[in-house]
Amino acid sequence: MIAFLTDFGLKDPYVGIVKGVIHSIAPNTHLIDISHDISPGNIREASFMLKMSYKYFPRGTVFLAVVDPGVGSQRRGLACKIGHWFFVGPDNGLFSHVIREVGECECHEITNNSLFLKDLSSTFHARDVFGPVAAHLENGIPLDQVGPKVENIIRLVIKDAFFSGENITGEIVYFDRFGNAITNIDSKLMERLGAKALQIKLKDHDLPLVACYEMGKDLLAFGIIGSHGYLEISSYLESAQKLLGLEIGDQVVASPISFS
Amino acid sequence: MIAFLTDFGLKDPYVGIVKGVIHSIAPNTHLIDISHDISPGNIREASFMLKMSYKYFPRGTVFLAVVDPGVGSQRRGLACKIGHWFFVGPDNGLFSHVIREVGECECHEITNNSLFLKDLSSTFHARDVFGPVAAHLENGIPLDQVGPKVENIIRLVIKDAFFSGENITGEIVYFDRFGNAITNIDSKLMERLGAKALQIKLKDHDLPLVACYEMGKDLLAFGIIGSHGYLEISSYLESAQKLLGLEIGDQVVASPISFS
Amino acid sequence: MIAFLTDFGLKDPYVGIVKGVIHSIAPNTHLIDISHDISPGNIREASFMLKMSYKYFPRGTVFLAVVDPGVGSQRRGLACKIGHWFFVGPDNGLFSHVIREVGECECHEITNNSLFLKDLSSTFHARDVFGPVAAHLENGIPLDQVGPKVENIIRLVIKDAFFSGENITGEIVYFDRFGNAITNIDSKLMERLGAKALQIKLKDHDLPLVACYEMGKDLLAFGIIGSHGYLEISSYLESAQKLLGLEIGDQVVASPISFS
Repeated sequence: MIAFLTDFGLKDPYVGIVKGVIHSIAPNTHLIDISHDISPGNIREASFMLKMSYKYFPRGTVFLAVVDPGVGSQRRGLACKIGHWFFVGPDNGLFSHVIREVGECECHEITNNSLFLKDLSSTFHARDVFGPVAAHLENGIPLDQVGPKVENIIRLVIKDAFFSGENITGEIVYFDRFGNAITNIDSKLMERLGAKALQIKLKDHDLPLVACYEMGKDLLAFGIIGSHGYLEISSYLESAQKLLGLEIGDQVVASPISFS
Repeated sequence: MIAFLTDFGLKDPYVGIVKGVIHSIAPNTHLIDISHDISPGNIREASFMLKMSYKYFPRGTVFLAVVDPGVGSQRRGLACKIGHWFFVGPDNGLFSHVIREVGECECHEITNNSLFLKDLSSTFHARDVFGPVAAHLENGIPLDQVGPKVENIIRLVIKDAFFSGENITGEIVYFDRFGNAITNIDSKLMERLGAKALQIKLKDHDLPLVACYEMGKDLLAFGIIGSHGYLEISSYLESAQKLLGLEIGDQVVASPISFS
Repeated sequence: MIAFLTDFGLKDPYVGIVKGVIHSIAPNTHLIDISHDISPGNIREASFMLKMSYKYFPRGTVFLAVVDPGVGSQRRGLACKIGHWFFVGPDNGLFSHVIREVGECECHEITNNSLFLKDLSSTFHARDVFGPVAAHLENGIPLDQVGPKVENIIRLVIKDAFFSGENITGEIVYFDRFGNAITNIDSKLMERLGAKALQIKLKDHDLPLVACYEMGKDLLAFGIIGSHGYLEISSYLESAQKLLGLEIGDQVVASPISFS
């Protein structure tokens, strides 16, 4: 199976063209779209989305991820095995969050141009290079046929949430369609505070932590452990992002409620 | 085959994640998207869309429908056989229009947690519960392995168009992308008026009934029997919704043209 | 394989319904979306998009293309073999760009109503006629079972870029999601100017021609040979369309830089 993530949008034929190329090489593969609406050029968003997704796909899935503002320049192309999955795309940090979470990782620079489409363009490597390489991996060629192993790949700097006393300080890293604000505060960190009731501080707001959306029905907004295991700021049937005027990077602090 | 309907949107990776889970359980299934742009939380819209769609899918298709503002609360999950098709989703009225049209229906509450993903979240049951159950049904497990049969499922109140004298009174129930306003006036009702020429009253407008879009080329707007067998209000290459300022629930009256 | 292009959008269930119909007839076919966000009724845009796409799909692919403002009128339906590919849709010019590029073309009018869905609507021929015909072609029925061969199909007027002296004059024909403006100036035309450095004149701007996006990092905008072999006007991580206020049909002139 090939899982496909880009910033190409769905209006233009680019996504369909890459799929046509893939099916020409690997006719029976299943293709699943993760998203094609990454903000144009936003490598960090794409990297985070891959982390949210990869573990729910079967082992051996090839992730084709193309957010590639450097296309046509000297930036390298990569094919990596990270844990039980394969990842193909430009060397610009796209796989940072997954590598950080999984640990083991074997990356190869894409140099074997016998795998590419003829008439390589300088602007559409998803079609000419990455799509074909993903299809050949799906067909079972070994990673080292793609090109030589490399070590020094580009990695994004990723900020962690941290403890100070009984406060956990983190920040907003992603907004979803519903306006939920996903933070980098892992529920495992919060469990270290034990059974204490928690409150969430965010800008001028003190928000309670609830167990499900419906419990927040009558609240302006609330904290909730989201489906990816991170603290999220949400609002019932509303966009917390809009209601509270939130932005990526806004500080979020979780701490025990003090009854003093 | 699994047909998939949600309000998740296509920007976030949620739809792709559910598909990854499904393919992990049922590797060769075909997945078809009906829509992922249901207005957030709009159960009525999703229910109507299922009615527009189900009969065009092969018998045995599993419809996975998740519009689920009550996720994580006590609301039940359902797996139903309705006519020749299966439906999986929360018990909140999503299947009302289909059940009403088809009649026969066998619903089971989803309780067999050996079918779920481990580490159940409280916010993403499409991934953890409904997707896996749909995949297992696609693999052929019988409905009663999902959980016990239930009778008292939640049903939406659905208003019918009605006759008074020679007038048929109904209302707008759905707008499509083109701004066509779909009403709840069934063409079979209109046939009861026989061969008489009809006019459509809507707000301050008297609109003619035409046989195809091109016949309405020079009209502001017109009535037409849409592809689902219901009266629609349309405008040639324009949005009737915008041109006439229409809203869901607006009254529409079809009646014979009087030559008095 | 069936490749699918419409102006239906993805909010409504129309695309999914057509896929349900196709799978009922050809259960194991792979379906790939090219785009469903053609501007409503924009036949020229759809025709251009088909030209951008078809050659990247396997031989024998059936292209189902439905942008059909004349649905339900007397306009004919067509099933064509153009080069190594099949095309199904209304006779309104949709296949003009592909026919022009490929040359050979055999078109049949769709008349064999034993292939259609029963209860033909007057508004949704993608579901009732074109989808079923595409599925039957995918199943291998010969073209002449669809209906009689026809010659006088509708063709769009397509303007070519042209030489005058050492100037090549063309125009903008398409904007993609990134705001890149694709012109009708073929890179092969530009090669005839030999190794001379070129500049692009567009409204009041003189733009340089660069080899990859990153080379244009510090420029307002630039020309670049796009992935389809045509001159494009682009801006690094910005929309050239918005920055320069461009429109379809704007004149673009490529000429050698004069050092006088």
